Amino acid sequence: MAASPYQQLEDEFRRLHAFRGALAILRWDAAVVMPSGSADVRGEQLAALETECHLILTSPKVSRLIDRAQASVDGLEDWQVANLREMRRQRDHSLAMPNALISRLAKATARAEVHWAEARRNRRYAEVAPYLAEVVALTRDRAALLGQHLGLDPYDALLDEFSPGVLTAAIDPLFKTLGRRLPALIQESLQLQTNAAPLPIEGRFSSSRQRALCVEAMKALGFPFERGRLDESEHSFTEGVSGDLRVTTHFELADPFHGLLAALHETGHALYQLGLPPEWRDQPVGRSRGLALEESQSLLLEMCVVRGRPFLTFLKPMIDRHLGASGAAWEVDNLYRHLTRVHASPLRIDADELTYLPHVLLRCDLERDLISGKLDVAHLAEAWNTAAESRLGVRPKDDGDGCLQDDHWAVGQFAYFPAHALGGLIAMQLWEAIRNDVDDLDAAIACGDFTALNQWLRMNVHGVGARSNVQDLVKDATGQPLSALPALRYLEAKYLEPR
Amino acid sequence: MAASPYQQLEDEFRRLHAFRGALAILRWDAAVVMPSGSADVRGEQLAALETECHLILTSPKVSRLIDRAQASVDGLEDWQVANLREMRRQRDHSLAMPNALISRLAKATARAEVHWAEARRNRRYAEVAPYLAEVVALTRDRAALLGQHLGLDPYDALLDEFSPGVLTAAIDPLFKTLGRRLPALIQESLQLQTNAAPLPIEGRFSSSRQRALCVEAMKALGFPFERGRLDESEHSFTEGVSGDLRVTTHFELADPFHGLLAALHETGHALYQLGLPPEWRDQPVGRSRGLALEESQSLLLEMCVVRGRPFLTFLKPMIDRHLGASGAAWEVDNLYRHLTRVHASPLRIDADELTYLPHVLLRCDLERDLISGKLDVAHLAEAWNTAAESRLGVRPKDDGDGCLQDDHWAVGQFAYFPAHALGGLIAMQLWEAIRNDVDDLDAAIACGDFTALNQWLRMNVHGVGARSNVQDLVKDATGQPLSALPALRYLEAKYLEPR
Repeated sequence: MAASPYQQLEDEFRRLHAFRGALAILRWDAAVVMPSGSADVRGEQLAALETECHLILTSPKVSRLIDRAQASVDGLEDWQVANLREMRRQRDHSLAMPNALISRLAKATARAEVHWAEARRNRRYAEVAPYLAEVVALTRDRAALLGQHLGLDPYDALLDEFSPGVLTAAIDPLFKTLGRRLPALIQESLQLQTNAAPLPIEGRFSSSRQRALCVEAMKALGFPFERGRLDESEHSFTEGVSGDLRVTTHFELADPFHGLLAALHETGHALYQLGLPPEWRDQPVGRSRGLALEESQSLLLEMCVVRGRPFLTFLKPMIDRHLGASGAAWEVDNLYRHLTRVHASPLRIDADELTYLPHVLLRCDLERDLISGKLDVAHLAEAWNTAAESRLGVRPKDDGDGCLQDDHWAVGQFAYFPAHALGGLIAMQLWEAIRNDVDDLDAAIACGDFTALNQWLRMNVHGVGARSNVQDLVKDATGQPLSALPALRYLEAKYLEPR
Repeated sequence: MAASPYQQLEDEFRRLHAFRGALAILRWDAAVVMPSGSADVRGEQLAALETECHLILTSPKVSRLIDRAQASVDGLEDWQVANLREMRRQRDHSLAMPNALISRLAKATARAEVHWAEARRNRRYAEVAPYLAEVVALTRDRAALLGQHLGLDPYDALLDEFSPGVLTAAIDPLFKTLGRRLPALIQESLQLQTNAAPLPIEGRFSSSRQRALCVEAMKALGFPFERGRLDESEHSFTEGVSGDLRVTTHFELADPFHGLLAALHETGHALYQLGLPPEWRDQPVGRSRGLALEESQSLLLEMCVVRGRPFLTFLKPMIDRHLGASGAAWEVDNLYRHLTRVHASPLRIDADELTYLPHVLLRCDLERDLISGKLDVAHLAEAWNTAAESRLGVRPKDDGDGCLQDDHWAVGQFAYFPAHALGGLIAMQLWEAIRNDVDDLDAAIACGDFTALNQWLRMNVHGVGARSNVQDLVKDATGQPLSALPALRYLEAKYLEPR
């Protein structure tokens, strides 16, 4: 019997999955082990594979099969129907972009990236503004085209790439609720912490000791080293597929928590990949539910779990053993103060759990106004500085500490920061639900028993794959619609706690 | 103006080259850094890319373009004509194999490989003979089909895969000439060495020290670490393309020459890749001239250069420095005796420069008789033992030391050993020509100056790419037709030298 249109589609997407897996390994290789002079050769390999992926998604054959499968959708099971919807979604996103626009954007972002780095060295935004204006103009075209194709407002179409199904109208009120409370919350917590500064963490710790600590903590959390690796790279990241997970971190000799927190943040990403529904692992419905959900998993682990007293209680003997540390600065209570210390810095990379959100929300506002045309690219630096002052209470001393600190927009990444803000909200909402559902969670974590935590996440988040959209997934998992209130409850409890 | 058929072909083969480069990195990754449990995921990625390569070569589009380009071949330049010929060659080899036969062979070799390992543990060939018989029968079908397609005798068609343009009729007399002289030469050299045993090389040397020695020696030889790497793997190999060369070796703590010789053998392969004509690097004519030539480059470096007094003179201070070695055993003369020591062992992996050739020639005879049907698979073990006795002077004590030692045939690799024998002959013929052409070569090598050697090889071998067939390349490089006499002259001079 000949394969049905739906089965033929599964074969096409299985091929796509294999190519994407190959791309992941090639990208990991480029960041971790590739010789410095081989970037040109690698670029050709990546381009050839990416073109092939694009060709599969935009082929008349796949579109024809999608139409035919859709016509007999009644014969499909639930997961298959969801899989077909995700196939169509990927096809629509690929098909919406004309090659000419893709190539103009590639050139404009390449130019803007170079000038951004130069402008950042000189700390003068004006030098890069015309190049950013070009990227913004092309991105507006892209958003308009994508919006037409998907039946969405232009900015919502961009949101849909990283946070499937999420609309501005749904998240804007949440971001506003959060944004109204955060500036005061930051000031209150700074006030509370004034007389409770932690003892400084001092010493130098070799990469091999830090690595051993990371590996032991990752193993305890469930990272499968027989199907994964931990390596070092300039910026930490997670690549690969659930059968071959590659996590990286970056060690600072004088700050052992820098590399550890990065490794455990990435472990959150890896555990999501690991928990995706195995029988659908090479199909669209078996992949993650986009960047917002991915970030929720890394933030939940790094912020809610790791920067908490129970986890630090579990971690302390490991720290003592691997880092050879001892003394009052290394007691659980001091470590906790150290990892929950609030700093109102103008730089996002210096942010803590509490100030991370206003940093990201500031970017969400500005990029939406850039795309809508409400904010002229020429006035970005001033708008940034004003927003930083009102959201964080600090005015950047120059553009280097202001809008030049991140190059995401220069390289064309819009709707990336909203996915991060949303990821933070979702993390805290999931965390509240987990604490309600799981008995004695703190005691289990303090003993290094993450079974119940992982089971909850696998059942309610990881194992769902891309079957639901973001909001439904959160509602099904927590019993509540997506909301900013759990985040506010969590942050107030943690950062207004008497010290 | 639209691209000509020839230009369109270049585009197709450029894509093929990018996919093959990606495959090389994925294979390197699997052997060097991949987590142990990720083989299944990797298998899917490799299969998808290999299928894609096969589809490009066998596509009606490529065949049509080849025909059209051929029709206007007069308008092409020499390199383009040669490139078109190599495109056709690759297409013909791919097109000749029906998918059904490829898949039957894949299954039969997978079965035979498992049973081979089991039979080897039990040292009983009879256990695997029926499975090998299946592989041989399918390989005979494959050879017949390939032969029909290429207009060659069946075994010559197999030869053509690894040694393009080489016919049994051309190499058989050379192998016979060599084979007639080698048994006596081995006995004479053993006799000469009886009273001149080298002092033993003793000590244990960490991998990091051995690695540092390899890296310094490889750099001196011209290996480009900014576009290449040295790593460890179970079996040493070279992967990648000329812009990203990945060499591996395997260190034995008690034998620093094991890892060093393997690394420098592979460096010979890498320098060949590096010297291929850069303007053709992503086209068939810009690739190596097959396995026989590749082996000639690794053997030339490992055997003729490295196992020679001038190179050891250059290497000695490096060895002293990195391995912290000193004493009479580490003097150049003793190192030379150590590296030119002849052992008549029944095992190929224990072979030295002199006994390596009879080991390989023995396999050449037997596999040709297996494919022609002259030798029944059931009688292989006995035929092997008889041949080993007459060629090497030692009879294997059982099948484990006999025909079970190599699993190449079980996995379907025929015509592989002839390429190695030929590679050895070519290495020695090139070496004789280099010594004639380059003044003061020994003095340059003793000073670590490999410029003239590398220039000669680049001009006469590497830079030719796949423009000529094997015999023409050798004749153009040396001024003499391919012959066994330079090998005999070289081996007699080196191994009958009074000790």
